[in-house]
Amino acid sequence: MLRFIHPPLALTLSATLAFANPLPSWNDTNAKARIISFVDQVTDPASDSYVTPAERIATFDNDGTLWAEQPLYFQLIFAINVIGTMAAEDPSILTSDALRAAANRDYKVVLAGGKEAIVEIMKISHAGMPVETFQARVADWLDSTTHPDTGLAYDEMTYQPMVELLVYLRDEGFKTYIVSGGGIHFMRVFAEEAYGIPPEQVIGTYTETTYSTDTGTPVITKAPAVGFFDDKEGKPINIDRIIGRRPIFVSGNSDGDFAMLDWSTSGPGPRLGLIVHHTDAVREYAYDRDGQIGVLNDGLDLGPGKGWLIVDMASDWARIYVGQQNGK
Amino acid sequence: MLRFIHPPLALTLSATLAFANPLPSWNDTNAKARIISFVDQVTDPASDSYVTPAERIATFDNDGTLWAEQPLYFQLIFAINVIGTMAAEDPSILTSDALRAAANRDYKVVLAGGKEAIVEIMKISHAGMPVETFQARVADWLDSTTHPDTGLAYDEMTYQPMVELLVYLRDEGFKTYIVSGGGIHFMRVFAEEAYGIPPEQVIGTYTETTYSTDTGTPVITKAPAVGFFDDKEGKPINIDRIIGRRPIFVSGNSDGDFAMLDWSTSGPGPRLGLIVHHTDAVREYAYDRDGQIGVLNDGLDLGPGKGWLIVDMASDWARIYVGQQNGK
Repeated sequence: MLRFIHPPLALTLSATLAFANPLPSWNDTNAKARIISFVDQVTDPASDSYVTPAERIATFDNDGTLWAEQPLYFQLIFAINVIGTMAAEDPSILTSDALRAAANRDYKVVLAGGKEAIVEIMKISHAGMPVETFQARVADWLDSTTHPDTGLAYDEMTYQPMVELLVYLRDEGFKTYIVSGGGIHFMRVFAEEAYGIPPEQVIGTYTETTYSTDTGTPVITKAPAVGFFDDKEGKPINIDRIIGRRPIFVSGNSDGDFAMLDWSTSGPGPRLGLIVHHTDAVREYAYDRDGQIGVLNDGLDLGPGKGWLIVDMASDWARIYVGQQNGK
Repeated sequence: MLRFIHPPLALTLSATLAFANPLPSWNDTNAKARIISFVDQVTDPASDSYVTPAERIATFDNDGTLWAEQPLYFQLIFAINVIGTMAAEDPSILTSDALRAAANRDYKVVLAGGKEAIVEIMKISHAGMPVETFQARVADWLDSTTHPDTGLAYDEMTYQPMVELLVYLRDEGFKTYIVSGGGIHFMRVFAEEAYGIPPEQVIGTYTETTYSTDTGTPVITKAPAVGFFDDKEGKPINIDRIIGRRPIFVSGNSDGDFAMLDWSTSGPGPRLGLIVHHTDAVREYAYDRDGQIGVLNDGLDLGPGKGWLIVDMASDWARIYVGQQNGK
């Protein structure tokens, strides 16, 4: 697992180095220039667009924005693994097509089942244990599993240019948050080491939890029910609920992020919306309008008219993964 | 309103002054000594009990812990005022005993109706408008209304010793949060000026909200339904959900805070639970085991056995309100 092997390069950059060249893995294209221009503008006290540090809130989707999400969401791969392990011990848990597909590691059938299948798999694999137990399982899985295409640990498949962007924004006084459809308890296991984002700045989907003192010690247990889906309009709703300010920098990659970008960038004053467009079939994956993961239509059709920056991974990024320089 | 008149004294204390005498409005009793001893212990890198700054999470209840809550919760007084104004324009909204009592400013009848009456009043008074509109109303109310007993603005009835405690903890590397049964949108209007606590560190009860782009601009609107009650076991559940770490310093005043204190202080390593006990009938209000506001039984019965510090307002505090030196 990444955090026990080496810290991501960008997280160890000094502020001085970052100042000299804040985004070394970004090519010298328009995308990099626009990001730096925006940051210069909002951090210059002499600028009309100056924003106080307290209001420099930046939110990032995770799957497909900060790390890869193919051939399917990494958290779902984890969940499918858990179902497989559980079914080996007790096949009677396989009460539906979705669960049987999961036990067979049949990703295609799982995805074809849509949101309903995903929820069913999540409910069984993510519930019935204390939060700490769940997080230890996630850590074990990250330590022991590699991605089928790259051979990298999943948390080495974070995007080097985005990690640099997070560091750059923090160096410039921004507070960086994850706002993801992924689960809070899952993401918090690696977010601090991988991105420098502490647990209290990880916003996401969550299962219901229960509080009990039955054993004599208070314990919080994950329940088999989704408490909140942090996707689509759930993202601005959750940001209002948890952060209570409208972000000025906001980044995503799919139409699940559209409402978050739209709400954030429609506020007064300077705002930057950024969409990571998956255009690199050689070094990563090329996908947008079709499929079942990371579908992007509205962002491509309406984003440019709203002034959003569409980042072309193939041409704007000199490097893809933190864990690897080139190629899958 | 406080924030336009004068900043609370403690918020303008320099770190140097704070270091010299961090809690000037606390008498030199055991309570002050225990707080300082705990903070010294967890911030001394040479101590076995040292806690890294990232883990120095401190959570505070608001009503009855950071500001007064008599003769009833200030947010409920606000809501009752709103119902009165709404009923003057349209009496047909008064469809229940609770709403009629609110329109008559009959606090006793409202309280006698219990949680159900409060929820009904909150639903009508807190919904059907964008978050920004609601918050402007709260700000207007704080600017224009004074407390019936003290004549102070409500946000001047914050407790000077607790404001000093917040500043002291932050000076010592703690991150201070509110975790209150009060509403997030309500508290965020004054929490930063009154306590130095930014919106993203205000956790509380919230109404459901809806996201709409019907007018062409995205807007988040408060809906007439409670989304989450941040009280009793809801407090540790919400802390796990939003902060993702177990606080090491935790403070409350009623049995609504018991679960938060119990969960927090049962974690490993050094922890301090603090209960504000309302013992001062002359300068504030004396109440604990009986009544409908701030009822405290379990905390008094079980808290000392759990090592919690019970603060006696009458003897431990040299001063009560930020807005006034002595007496109601």
